Amino acid sequence: MNTTEKLLKTLQTEFDQHSYGNFPDELYDPIRYIMSLSGKRFRPLLTLLSASIYSDDWQKAIKPAMAVEVFHNFTLMHDDIMDKAPLRRGKATVHEKWNANTAILSGDVMLIKAYDLLLDIPKDSLRAVIARFNQTAAEVCEGQQLDMNFETRWDVTEEEYLQMIRLKTSVLLGFALELGGLIGGADQESTQLLYAAGENMGIGFQLKDDLLDVYGDPEKFGKQVGGDIISNKKTFLLIEALTQASGELKSELEKWISRKDFDSEEKVKAVTEIYEKLHIRTFTQEKIDDYFARGINSLEQLKINEERKKPLLQFVRQLVEREK
Amino acid sequence: MNTTEKLLKTLQTEFDQHSYGNFPDELYDPIRYIMSLSGKRFRPLLTLLSASIYSDDWQKAIKPAMAVEVFHNFTLMHDDIMDKAPLRRGKATVHEKWNANTAILSGDVMLIKAYDLLLDIPKDSLRAVIARFNQTAAEVCEGQQLDMNFETRWDVTEEEYLQMIRLKTSVLLGFALELGGLIGGADQESTQLLYAAGENMGIGFQLKDDLLDVYGDPEKFGKQVGGDIISNKKTFLLIEALTQASGELKSELEKWISRKDFDSEEKVKAVTEIYEKLHIRTFTQEKIDDYFARGINSLEQLKINEERKKPLLQFVRQLVEREK
Repeated sequence: MNTTEKLLKTLQTEFDQHSYGNFPDELYDPIRYIMSLSGKRFRPLLTLLSASIYSDDWQKAIKPAMAVEVFHNFTLMHDDIMDKAPLRRGKATVHEKWNANTAILSGDVMLIKAYDLLLDIPKDSLRAVIARFNQTAAEVCEGQQLDMNFETRWDVTEEEYLQMIRLKTSVLLGFALELGGLIGGADQESTQLLYAAGENMGIGFQLKDDLLDVYGDPEKFGKQVGGDIISNKKTFLLIEALTQASGELKSELEKWISRKDFDSEEKVKAVTEIYEKLHIRTFTQEKIDDYFARGINSLEQLKINEERKKPLLQFVRQLVEREK
Repeated sequence: MNTTEKLLKTLQTEFDQHSYGNFPDELYDPIRYIMSLSGKRFRPLLTLLSASIYSDDWQKAIKPAMAVEVFHNFTLMHDDIMDKAPLRRGKATVHEKWNANTAILSGDVMLIKAYDLLLDIPKDSLRAVIARFNQTAAEVCEGQQLDMNFETRWDVTEEEYLQMIRLKTSVLLGFALELGGLIGGADQESTQLLYAAGENMGIGFQLKDDLLDVYGDPEKFGKQVGGDIISNKKTFLLIEALTQASGELKSELEKWISRKDFDSEEKVKAVTEIYEKLHIRTFTQEKIDDYFARGINSLEQLKINEERKKPLLQFVRQLVEREK
């Protein structure tokens, strides 16, 4: 077993054994349910990998790492209500399986329980860590609010979109890596590099999600290819296309967006062709490569023995290559 | 200006000047809105009164005291969604004025901002204070869940009801007083007495609310007298009546509860008469007096100069006497 596999296995055991609370069941069952859906435990793994760069005692980062994952799942539980999403990881969402009130209240308790897990931090850094967590957590909510604001706007700029995904998804990846550094004992320059790495790669991952929705291998992707096109979701690709298109191409794109009745396959094909004509695929891919390169560059800059960085760098490179 | 008035004025100035966040407005406007509705700032005032028993530097308790109030308003924002409440303090609730999604997300940020305010605690007690806050916050959610569970049950016992209101409302009053003690430097015996005082008085206040809904002076009460009876709300009075009634009285009570069409005034009159026959009013009043006496007794037991306790005891006695 390599380092990453070992850390992941430890994490899984800890999650399996963790008690979120017991009474009343109606409050805690949904927490156990969402935490048992097969998430990749990607964020807490980053925290442990980052902590183990600076300390052999990475176990001390386990509970705080779990806090990041519990917080992430809290945001999923509440976002799913707001997005009226029926499924999460192929299973019924909490508000579908129970109801919206339960999803609100169980989510609230999850956020509190995340703070409980975060208390397992040495006294000297506790305030600083919680302050950073608070900032990150508020930013994630700000990103979700921007995302909702964008639903009714057709003039979202690339800059606004990048800000939204940075807040909604990337800052938490940045914090996950920074947290490991803080617990491991990294200096300030290093924790800032770790944060920047997570932040940039997070934007890369989100843009890649947007790209894969159109260009992913249907066999590997697991979702309907073109789902974002069908639902007019404001992805990076659509925002770029709306910005860059002019004349006849723009009219055609707008026609497809405004149509109420259409054949899904036909719409996906037509909009993809518009993307092709505007070279949106290449443009997006270059952006993604750029963000990933910036992220990996930050990690390479960490002033520490190459051997110690290896598991994190290896893991991150794998993520970057995946599905590409 | 007496001590209590001075503390309250300071609190109000601090709330007026406090910034919860700015961007995006859609997220932070609802927070400013709910915090501006004229709450009595009852909980943070308890924290300051409690801190000032043990320290002349009660100012150091201001931010943590505000955390309690922000947390309380977060629970109101989310509870109002769950209860589909149209009004809060005579104004439109957040989910009515904006929408449910906004109320969910702004509430989430409020909870995070409460933790931010709570960070203003000396390093040595920070972990202990946050741990106690976490426990209290989770209990408040547990109480809300029990309250929702009770809506569809007709076999709620007195014991269950008291547990529910203890969790939903009293533990936060207990924590508010305990927090002041912790910050002021009280010993463990004293912080436990402060907690017990808030917990018992909190139960007293809730039972008094239940009683005033039926027997309050309509001029002073500000709500429709008998509103709980009309809506079949499971108050202490109704639970006692259901438990104690038998024979014809029980049938009549059940008839009024199950009726879909009725004249409100007639129902209030009939159910109140049933309460009278069962001596529910006296029974409830005795319970209230008992909880208040226990609360005040805890405060009297505090081993400290009587002069220092005076403002808190005076304030609490006023609350107890109010509307009675």
